Amino acid sequence: MIKELTVNLGERSYPIYIGQGLLEEVGAYFEKHGISKASPLLIVTDSHVAERYLQPVTDRLKEAGFQPVSHTVQAGEKSKALSVLEEVVTTCLEAGLDRKSTVVALGGGVIGDLAGFVAASYMRGVRFIQIPTTILAHDSSVGGKVAVNHPLAKNIIGAFHQPEFVLYDTSTLLSLPDREVRAGLSEMIKHGLIWDAEFTTWCEDNADRLTGLDPEALQYGLYKGCGVKAAVVSQDERENDLRAILNLGHTIGHALEAVAGYGELLHGEAIAIGMVGAAMLSVQLGNPEEIHTVTERIFRKFGLPVRIPAHYDTDAIMTAMMHDKKFKEGQMVYIVPTEIGKVEINKNVSAALVRDVVERLKQED
Amino acid sequence: MIKELTVNLGERSYPIYIGQGLLEEVGAYFEKHGISKASPLLIVTDSHVAERYLQPVTDRLKEAGFQPVSHTVQAGEKSKALSVLEEVVTTCLEAGLDRKSTVVALGGGVIGDLAGFVAASYMRGVRFIQIPTTILAHDSSVGGKVAVNHPLAKNIIGAFHQPEFVLYDTSTLLSLPDREVRAGLSEMIKHGLIWDAEFTTWCEDNADRLTGLDPEALQYGLYKGCGVKAAVVSQDERENDLRAILNLGHTIGHALEAVAGYGELLHGEAIAIGMVGAAMLSVQLGNPEEIHTVTERIFRKFGLPVRIPAHYDTDAIMTAMMHDKKFKEGQMVYIVPTEIGKVEINKNVSAALVRDVVERLKQED
Ligand SMILES: NC(=O)c1ccc[n+]([C@@H]2O[C@H](COP(=O)([O-])OP(=O)(O)OC[C@H]3O[C@@H](n4cnc5c(N)ncnc54)[C@H](O)[C@@H]3O)[C@@H](O)[C@H]2O)c1
Ligand SMILES: NC(=O)c1ccc[n+]([C@@H]2O[C@H](COP(=O)([O-])OP(=O)(O)OC[C@H]3O[C@@H](n4cnc5c(N)ncnc54)[C@H](O)[C@@H]3O)[C@@H](O)[C@H]2O)c1
Ligand SMILES: [Zn+2]
Ligand SMILES: [Zn+2]
Repeated sequence: MIKELTVNLGERSYPIYIGQGLLEEVGAYFEKHGISKASPLLIVTDSHVAERYLQPVTDRLKEAGFQPVSHTVQAGEKSKALSVLEEVVTTCLEAGLDRKSTVVALGGGVIGDLAGFVAASYMRGVRFIQIPTTILAHDSSVGGKVAVNHPLAKNIIGAFHQPEFVLYDTSTLLSLPDREVRAGLSEMIKHGLIWDAEFTTWCEDNADRLTGLDPEALQYGLYKGCGVKAAVVSQDERENDLRAILNLGHTIGHALEAVAGYGELLHGEAIAIGMVGAAMLSVQLGNPEEIHTVTERIFRKFGLPVRIPAHYDTDAIMTAMMHDKKFKEGQMVYIVPTEIGKVEINKNVSAALVRDVVERLKQED
Repeated sequence: MIKELTVNLGERSYPIYIGQGLLEEVGAYFEKHGISKASPLLIVTDSHVAERYLQPVTDRLKEAGFQPVSHTVQAGEKSKALSVLEEVVTTCLEAGLDRKSTVVALGGGVIGDLAGFVAASYMRGVRFIQIPTTILAHDSSVGGKVAVNHPLAKNIIGAFHQPEFVLYDTSTLLSLPDREVRAGLSEMIKHGLIWDAEFTTWCEDNADRLTGLDPEALQYGLYKGCGVKAAVVSQDERENDLRAILNLGHTIGHALEAVAGYGELLHGEAIAIGMVGAAMLSVQLGNPEEIHTVTERIFRKFGLPVRIPAHYDTDAIMTAMMHDKKFKEGQMVYIVPTEIGKVEINKNVSAALVRDVVERLKQED
């Protein structure tokens, strides 16, 4: 059974298809959405994903009459770089991609962000399709944020570029390393925590089915997770206000990723710690203790980290936060849970309070 | 006296101010448009322009309470590169530019295109102001096309990003080298040729005043030129159809620039040759001979080249054209004048006919 939902963005609206084995039908989906057969299309993927899924996807598309070419980058965050973007564009030019061409992201969030920025900027914008292959990508493939990193900051060079559609074949998730599975589920839990208490409880109750990649649980969880993301993005495409709630746990999380050196902590792991931190902050601000205990309990159940490794330097973490995009005109904006399933955007959180939380997150439990 | 006109693009509409000495009032214009004083703003400029205008602009802005920082790149087309963009972003990060910051282009088309793409992509888009200092930039500063080059193709990585306003101080043009003056006037003449026969005649009649930088003639010519650009862009912001007419002379022109090695022929010079070529093509397609004779006569009057240097290789020119963005799904799209002041978009021009024109353009006159 295929689940389908829509990201409502006026003329930029698009569907998300979620189900097992969808890649076998990739040609039909491309056809349904009027992807050009006369112009070449580019599949961007990484070395791990290419091994398993590039050939079958290419074959299906060729059989359906499309002209796929591909560009495979090294797996890992380092490929989200301008130098790699330039190499992908070389392939676009050599393959003769034109304005009617489409760029397809086949992979996780790294590939979605990189290929998406290629699609946004090649010839000032061509069509884009997301084929996510990680759990984390249920988040990154929805909402149109695309970007590459700068040596000094993550995701700092990018665009908003919505895909034509998202084709989410849950069978591809079976080959994901366990650590990536758990890290991806961290964003799914986030979607519960910011929007939907019932879904949060469902996640906690189904932790074992989710980490064990039970197909039905996965499909339902991804459907609900994508649904929250779609609802938020539909109301605020360009992050003027509401969309910021998606950053729950990300202020501390991004700082940890920066301090650790990209890759040491997975994104989902870093924001799990960040969400526990946000819950601690919430309690400090006078909200019920339960917010912290429940949040921490859930992440522990998923085997995700809930403390900052003790050797991380607090000053370095604080400095990294100062570079974060979430500081507007010198003010510290913080996403703070007010109960399970609800958050607020607090624009006056003092740096001292955050520092205090960081220190507590470093203590052994 | 200040001339003002508006680019009508709904909520992205913006004014163009044209006049002598406007830079003395730069602070007042920034204030009028609500540019943030709390966040730093970045002025991007090049080595030639910085020498003369960076200090006064910075001083005026500081006096008015803004926080300008600057990044100066080497003058020349080579600065329209991803590697340079990355360096500009380094400055943005080090200076602490945030989402309420503004990027200002102070310079010619190279700076406008580079700074504009920084503004479009830094934090997925911040505000942008154009302060053009070349005649050519009356074209490039209006319409929101921004881009950098790829080693294999010009302007291939970019975005549409409209400025808040364009501040055109015609006094800055007095320091322009004569060759740059003439090359810039080439785009002004183009605006006549595609849209306004009367303005074309006015250009021809005022060739000496324009090349001599007579302030009144300049202001009027730039006002009319910007007006044509604004009218076209207002009707077709993203080049779905009409906007393509702005590419008169550019198919051959871009190919010549590519074959020459960037810089040997100025952009305005290359498209002057290209417009003569388009006029020849027009006659071949059955339009009156006069289109060619008048077009060629005007460019000669402005001291612009009207022939391809004989040593340029025809095959190389044809190949370069094949890489041009104006080829959709293998078809050759060509902007062809049908009378002075009018053009049509011809989607079925045969490569053989174009080759014939290229050969004729290489013959001594
Ligand atoms: N654009 C957004 O809105 C958004 C939101 C959240 C995260 N992100 C970005 O997403 C990125 C993280 O995404 P990610 O966790 O998917 O990382 P990823 O793309 O690097 O994938 C993780 C690892 O799994 C491998 N992999 C992917 N699919 C696989 C499969 N089916 N089988 C086996 N291995 C597979 C990859 O090769 C990689 O080694 C970060 O760069 C982050 O900034 C973007
Ligand atoms: N975005 C668009 O719609 C669009 C349209 C047309 C052209 N362009 C681009 O514009 C660029 C060409 O623009 P350009 O001709 O202005 O080139 P440019 O910016 O390189 O300026 C030409 C030269 O004049 C110097 N200069 C600039 N202002 C000066 C001044 N006031 N006094 C003395 N010297 C000065 C510059 O340093 C440079 O050496 C090309 O890259 C072209 O692709 C873009
Ligand atoms: Zn995230
Ligand atoms: Zn031009």
